[in-house]
Amino acid sequence: MKFIIRRDQLIASVQDVMKAISSRTVIPILTGIKIDAKKHGITLTGSDSDISIESYIPAEQDEKVNIEVVEEGSIVLQSKYFPDIVRKLPEKNVEIESNDLKLTIRSGKAEFNLNGQDAEEYPQLPALQTDESFEMPTDLLKSLTKQTVFAVSTMETRPILTGVHIKLNNNTLTFTATDSHRLASREIPVNETSVEFSNIVVPGKSLTELNKILGDTPEPVEISVTNNQILFRTKHLKFMSRLLDGNYPQTSRLIPDQSKTVLYVKTKELLNTIDRASLLAKEERNNVVKLTTAGNHLVEITSNSPEVGTVAEEINVQSIEGEELKISFSSKYMIDALKAIEYDDVKIEFTGAMRPFIIRPANEDPILQLILPVRTY
Amino acid sequence: MKFIIRRDQLIASVQDVMKAISSRTVIPILTGIKIDAKKHGITLTGSDSDISIESYIPAEQDEKVNIEVVEEGSIVLQSKYFPDIVRKLPEKNVEIESNDLKLTIRSGKAEFNLNGQDAEEYPQLPALQTDESFEMPTDLLKSLTKQTVFAVSTMETRPILTGVHIKLNNNTLTFTATDSHRLASREIPVNETSVEFSNIVVPGKSLTELNKILGDTPEPVEISVTNNQILFRTKHLKFMSRLLDGNYPQTSRLIPDQSKTVLYVKTKELLNTIDRASLLAKEERNNVVKLTTAGNHLVEITSNSPEVGTVAEEINVQSIEGEELKISFSSKYMIDALKAIEYDDVKIEFTGAMRPFIIRPANEDPILQLILPVRTY
Repeated sequence: MKFIIRRDQLIASVQDVMKAISSRTVIPILTGIKIDAKKHGITLTGSDSDISIESYIPAEQDEKVNIEVVEEGSIVLQSKYFPDIVRKLPEKNVEIESNDLKLTIRSGKAEFNLNGQDAEEYPQLPALQTDESFEMPTDLLKSLTKQTVFAVSTMETRPILTGVHIKLNNNTLTFTATDSHRLASREIPVNETSVEFSNIVVPGKSLTELNKILGDTPEPVEISVTNNQILFRTKHLKFMSRLLDGNYPQTSRLIPDQSKTVLYVKTKELLNTIDRASLLAKEERNNVVKLTTAGNHLVEITSNSPEVGTVAEEINVQSIEGEELKISFSSKYMIDALKAIEYDDVKIEFTGAMRPFIIRPANEDPILQLILPVRTY
Repeated sequence: MKFIIRRDQLIASVQDVMKAISSRTVIPILTGIKIDAKKHGITLTGSDSDISIESYIPAEQDEKVNIEVVEEGSIVLQSKYFPDIVRKLPEKNVEIESNDLKLTIRSGKAEFNLNGQDAEEYPQLPALQTDESFEMPTDLLKSLTKQTVFAVSTMETRPILTGVHIKLNNNTLTFTATDSHRLASREIPVNETSVEFSNIVVPGKSLTELNKILGDTPEPVEISVTNNQILFRTKHLKFMSRLLDGNYPQTSRLIPDQSKTVLYVKTKELLNTIDRASLLAKEERNNVVKLTTAGNHLVEITSNSPEVGTVAEEINVQSIEGEELKISFSSKYMIDALKAIEYDDVKIEFTGAMRPFIIRPANEDPILQLILPVRTY
């Protein structure tokens, strides 16, 4: 194997595939990066067996030459050193050459000789046996993920809740996540597609890593699903994740269909006030703050932490409809939910102090955040 | 106590005094910030008993009103919450009021009530019993510190080596630090002063914290020393540190007065090459790299790490005078030393492979870095 590549392109590709590599994998060769050189381009692969990422750099693109492939071949390299080496090389171009299991990296007068491993020993990535796929804009996929993934459970007691439930039917795509104390959900219409599925659960970690890699690009992502894998494909990137086994709970019955108190308020104002009120409650009592309505246009947010002190702040709200209310909840959950809304105005629907409440953009865009209150005395 | 203050000014002051506060102090009240309000201004104090910092905000400055002091007084506040509270307050101004040991912070509609402690219980900072002081430019003090403090020992086996040795005589100020494997030293002329001292050792940690606080200001720092304290004073800041007990070793005898091989090289080129060569040697063998002269204008830097691989790079140097040389040393020490030089060209003087070598700016500015080589086979 021998090729000459632009250093900046190699750096970008290495950074992408590194996101899949874990030093704690049980399969030692997976701590490495696989490099595969063909005349038409170079493919880098990283995997921790849950997530696999392939980054492709074409030899030529838009009539510019990225890579000069002198000799085809492949090798697996220790990922612990490779990214730093590439990043610190002195020149714009890098020459990479392998001879049996020895790899030589040259740039300017610097020469690294590294021990590699046989690419034949690298596990074959599961090939997705499906022609069925649908497309969506990259930025929309990133938004959906950001608005839901924070609500997955971090506890392994119910593994299925560590994933995001993805459903596609009637050309509507829905992402739902819950840790059983709160729930985040959003649906969007997608282009006409024959693809449908209803019990796909993608590990939250996979979606978080995917979001880090997806750039700000107008190009779409192509998504295909099989029984146990999901593949996200962009022009030069393949991101594959295993799916979680098991049935995702029916979440729709959690969502109250009536409300007793409805609040319209500026998202940012409520967010900042709750953020301040949570300052004293950092460790004790799970960051609980209390919301009390006062008339038709005023809400008071309070918190107290017996050893430290108390905090109270009033906010003017656009309107309060229905019953008076005193309710306590986790400030962290509320802050996460309000940040996910992404609209200037929110509507909050309460059904009494002991029932879950719902936060939505005031304009009814189908983002839904649900939080279970905390019982206080 | 009651005063109204601009939030940005309070934030800056709080950040400064927080640098002295440690959550692991043995004196509980020292986890707090002392606030002292007088008609002429506010003083904040933080201390971990090794370092004490006082930040003063005058009520009026340059004919602008910073603070409106309504009622004098003082209190000690838990420092764990105060900085975050001040930073997140909604308005430009903050009202702070104490009643017995209760403190109220108001800004906009937000109100915090915090439990405070009696300022009478806060330890009295040692008053410096000396009129003797000298002045130096702030940026020069910061430079001297940066060029030496990294070389202090981090081991408590010889506590005196965890400090920087400061000497002032004949209007020359010298900073020296060594961990017994390397040494960093710089001297500068100071203005005519009657002050002289020779056995002052300031904890490295104190100087590091001081450097973080000192701004980029043309104003000078005033330095006074007593038997067991050193005080750095700027216009609105007092930074006091205890001194280390004991006699600092005679370091001058470590410095060879002759050399067998002299190298002139571009600082940055050598730094980058050694940085690259150290990449493979990260964990094993203490980051050792080898330097080998090759003729009069070429040096080779190599490193090898049996399991990972090898690296080699040649650099063109301006000149090599004297004997041929093969020498191994810690790349970390070399990188630290070259970064401290702050000049484009360095001169390195070797006295054989087993003797300490010296790195200086090529123009003979009195910065001196000394490194003990590593024996390799």
